[in-house]
Amino acid sequence: MRAEIVTVGTELLLGQIVDTNSAWLAERLASLGVDVHWQTKVGDNHGRMCEAFRLALGRADAVVVTGGLGPTQDDITREAVSEVTGRPLVRDPEVVALLERIFGGLGREMAASNLRQADVPEGATPILMRVGTAPGLIVPAGDAKVVYALPGVPHEMKEMWERSVVADLLERMGETATIRSRVLKCWGVSESRLADLLAERFDALDASGTATIAFLAGEGVVRVRITAKGSDEAAVEDLLTSEERVIRDILGEAVFGAGSDTMESVVVDLLRERGQRLATAESMTGGTVGEWITRVPGASDVYAGGAVTYTPASKTDVLGVPAETIEHHGVVSEEVAIAMAAGARRVFGAEVALSVTGSAGPGAQGSSVGEACLGVDVDGDVTVARVRFPGDRERVRSFATATLLDLLRRRLVGERRGG
Amino acid sequence: MRAEIVTVGTELLLGQIVDTNSAWLAERLASLGVDVHWQTKVGDNHGRMCEAFRLALGRADAVVVTGGLGPTQDDITREAVSEVTGRPLVRDPEVVALLERIFGGLGREMAASNLRQADVPEGATPILMRVGTAPGLIVPAGDAKVVYALPGVPHEMKEMWERSVVADLLERMGETATIRSRVLKCWGVSESRLADLLAERFDALDASGTATIAFLAGEGVVRVRITAKGSDEAAVEDLLTSEERVIRDILGEAVFGAGSDTMESVVVDLLRERGQRLATAESMTGGTVGEWITRVPGASDVYAGGAVTYTPASKTDVLGVPAETIEHHGVVSEEVAIAMAAGARRVFGAEVALSVTGSAGPGAQGSSVGEACLGVDVDGDVTVARVRFPGDRERVRSFATATLLDLLRRRLVGERRGG
Repeated sequence: MRAEIVTVGTELLLGQIVDTNSAWLAERLASLGVDVHWQTKVGDNHGRMCEAFRLALGRADAVVVTGGLGPTQDDITREAVSEVTGRPLVRDPEVVALLERIFGGLGREMAASNLRQADVPEGATPILMRVGTAPGLIVPAGDAKVVYALPGVPHEMKEMWERSVVADLLERMGETATIRSRVLKCWGVSESRLADLLAERFDALDASGTATIAFLAGEGVVRVRITAKGSDEAAVEDLLTSEERVIRDILGEAVFGAGSDTMESVVVDLLRERGQRLATAESMTGGTVGEWITRVPGASDVYAGGAVTYTPASKTDVLGVPAETIEHHGVVSEEVAIAMAAGARRVFGAEVALSVTGSAGPGAQGSSVGEACLGVDVDGDVTVARVRFPGDRERVRSFATATLLDLLRRRLVGERRGG
Repeated sequence: MRAEIVTVGTELLLGQIVDTNSAWLAERLASLGVDVHWQTKVGDNHGRMCEAFRLALGRADAVVVTGGLGPTQDDITREAVSEVTGRPLVRDPEVVALLERIFGGLGREMAASNLRQADVPEGATPILMRVGTAPGLIVPAGDAKVVYALPGVPHEMKEMWERSVVADLLERMGETATIRSRVLKCWGVSESRLADLLAERFDALDASGTATIAFLAGEGVVRVRITAKGSDEAAVEDLLTSEERVIRDILGEAVFGAGSDTMESVVVDLLRERGQRLATAESMTGGTVGEWITRVPGASDVYAGGAVTYTPASKTDVLGVPAETIEHHGVVSEEVAIAMAAGARRVFGAEVALSVTGSAGPGAQGSSVGEACLGVDVDGDVTVARVRFPGDRERVRSFATATLLDLLRRRLVGERRGG
């Protein structure tokens, strides 16, 4: 099956916002085995929207449209889909009732223009909204093709995609099987190294046809997506679980999480499991480690706090790093990283501490740009790593942060195993 | 004039990366008064690339292509542009020489495949590379049209756009005038309020035709772009400077910077000017304020460091906030913000301190989600603001950070004026 993605909105054409919907949809379509050869953006212009939809329907079996479903005058996706599919708009009473309920619940008067959102091409299926006020549309188009019209707001679009579009798409593909994916996330290993490690498993799956594996790399994280197909949900989940186990056995500690896990959420979970508190001591990263940790809702259960000691003097004053250690070994040294971590544990009364000292560039600081010393102190037992990261200032800082959290994760996982 | 943007790359169609080039180019084209009605993405497929280029050339006067100019076998933009424009590829000796110089400088052997990058459609003008190894192309297409082929790597693309494409485009538009833009950035004022404030100026410019103003809002920052046209560079710069002065007079302190300024870079500059040091004391933001400040290269000139005191106990232990102040007023209170700032100044030996205590959600913490107290301490003179931010955890944290930095900026600017 072939699909195309058309994103609608003059604000996209003016470059006022970056379109992230296309990439998200493209990735989901690829995971279902649907080919996407074209993506198009057009403005809120009736003629050009119709032309874009016609071109897409001429080349593909399914067209996924996002945007232009709101209540204002420039939201005209409904009208254009209606014209292209030859299905006149009919006001749908179920959508009207739902709109009235939504506005009633908000205690707000519904504007007459909102009723336009209840207009549905004849014979189409509205996707009722659970968030927002714009219903989606599943619109059959001549020759067994289909247009899916979804809201432009990413979380509304994604919710409808998962809830309604996937099943409809699979049915049209003649796919009676249930298809599910699971994603494992890896750090500290390159995509090509992962591919090598999984080559044999790759071939075995190719031969058995029970599941497939795909890689997706970005910002240092390599994701391994396992996709399985089966007669029902339970069978597919069993397949995924057993395949996940096989792959985790092969990749070992390179896998830091699955699904929506992030490096920081995994670290917070591990600390919570131990009932221990974390403190941070940062120099080069300037607060990034704390910022990441506290992105996790409920981080206050495990995060005591941290010190950003951006000057040598503050390392001494706040964390008690001996001035002679800095003078003797340099500010970017294993010795200073160790002393920073110990100081953070003491000052914040934590069992676990992370420290980072380095130079993010531009310009060196007693060391080469991109070089850092990372310290992990668990109950006073310190390990320290000297690393060097390529790239610009922002990249060096975020890679140092992820690597530091990963070092802690590996230690805590190792200790859990009794290693 | 009409232009279209075509981005090339199978990784875009698979959703492996988000295309930010289109939005950047679209915004630049809009600023030159060029209409963009279509944007298309295609994979590294010769037939579909040719079809996309033909469709675009059929509808527009200029087509901007990014991607597919690298040395590998799937980089085939050169071949597709050659076919569509009917201009056979010819190896360009100047590009060959430059490639040899680049690889020689890197001390690396040049692979034979790199020579493909020197292939230029007959009659086209290569845009010699200053970064990267992929030259761009300016390729005349029948009927006074043109294809601009640029690398997909954003900073390489942008550099060639500014250096070569803009001038060529203006010449083709019959635009003998020089056109330049300047961007002012505002915080703490909505787009509609800005539009109200500038309405009169807007009309005056409309009547005179010397310059135009446009707005662009995103992530709390509203940008005001002034565009001026004139016979030569000096005249245009004069126009921009005088218009910038007029607009700054109208908007006053809402303008925090211009061009590539960020809120944090402006704050770092103001502190450097005063020769003073900053310390931070963060709770809810978990290190974000420090992280932003240290994004600025050279921040170590003015940033002493900060404490992330994520628990009440650490506020007392590290920053000396009296336990009874926390107990009496609550952790999210003006009193605690004031004591945190004073503590940070003392602990880090700084003249200036920023503090934030609040609740980013989900779940309240002795106060409503999104509520925060922000403290600004300059030489012991503290101002404090209680604010409430809408949105999710990430948004609350980043808005709190920007607002806190903005409060400091306004104070320092006010003191400079002797206010």
